[in-house]
Amino acid sequence: MLEIRAATEAEHDAIWDIFHAIVAAGDTYAFELEMSRQEGLAYWFRADTRTYVAENDGRVVGTYILKPNHAGAGSHVANAAFMVAPDTRGLRVGRRMGEHCLGEAQRLGFRAMQFNFVVSTNEAAIRLWKRLGFNIVGTLPGAFQHPEKGYVDVYIMFRSLL
Amino acid sequence: MLEIRAATEAEHDAIWDIFHAIVAAGDTYAFELEMSRQEGLAYWFRADTRTYVAENDGRVVGTYILKPNHAGAGSHVANAAFMVAPDTRGLRVGRRMGEHCLGEAQRLGFRAMQFNFVVSTNEAAIRLWKRLGFNIVGTLPGAFQHPEKGYVDVYIMFRSLL
Repeated sequence: MLEIRAATEAEHDAIWDIFHAIVAAGDTYAFELEMSRQEGLAYWFRADTRTYVAENDGRVVGTYILKPNHAGAGSHVANAAFMVAPDTRGLRVGRRMGEHCLGEAQRLGFRAMQFNFVVSTNEAAIRLWKRLGFNIVGTLPGAFQHPEKGYVDVYIMFRSLL
Repeated sequence: MLEIRAATEAEHDAIWDIFHAIVAAGDTYAFELEMSRQEGLAYWFRADTRTYVAENDGRVVGTYILKPNHAGAGSHVANAAFMVAPDTRGLRVGRRMGEHCLGEAQRLGFRAMQFNFVVSTNEAAIRLWKRLGFNIVGTLPGAFQHPEKGYVDVYIMFRSLL
């Protein structure tokens, strides 16, 4: 049974384990590889950010954040980021968190959701976001330096919530 | 004679005057309208940011920032933002700062430059960036709430520096 709920300080260790593994792999996020635990958690728990965890049988297997993509006159568009524990398979954690996130964003009154940086080689993520109604609305040529594939394109994905 | 150079603390007042006027107008940037001087200057002088001023006859008439658009594997793409004093006309401050910025970005080894949030009603800016070699690579539907025009599209603009 996968339960998705707001994160608390009790999950900091579990979140950092996932965060660190994803960032160290270096093939999906444009973070500093040597980002510290403190920096990582500060980013994941910013003041303007809601942080969630997906728990399966008492173990945190995924986490996501939801926030305004911009302030002021851009704050009606949400942004979100997702991380799934690398050793988790078959639980559809990404899909379940994605659906939960869209529901939360709608509940909070956002009019749309935007992903600013979807690496084009991350095919599973792109497939998932398309299935959840997102479109590619922009392509940034060579904007990500993939650890094996070199400079690859990055997509901007967008979905109305109205 | 327009001189463009790195900003110092001596220009904080002049920069804030411009910043505040641009943000208060509310038709080009997605900042909180009630952003404080401290918050504004903190944003304009972040650790990863280079800050410049354009000075005309001893008066600061424009300012721009240049920084990596993302960290880590996205840090080869630069991002920049520009502000020109509203009462400045005929000095081509925007164009001169844009050219200066592209030169600086090349000198610093960036491979490309990206603007994440060009409001589609800001026609003078779009015309200028196109003239300086930028293309619209993405359109964000209704992503900016214009104070008079309501929800308007936002463009992502991109230019190779290679």
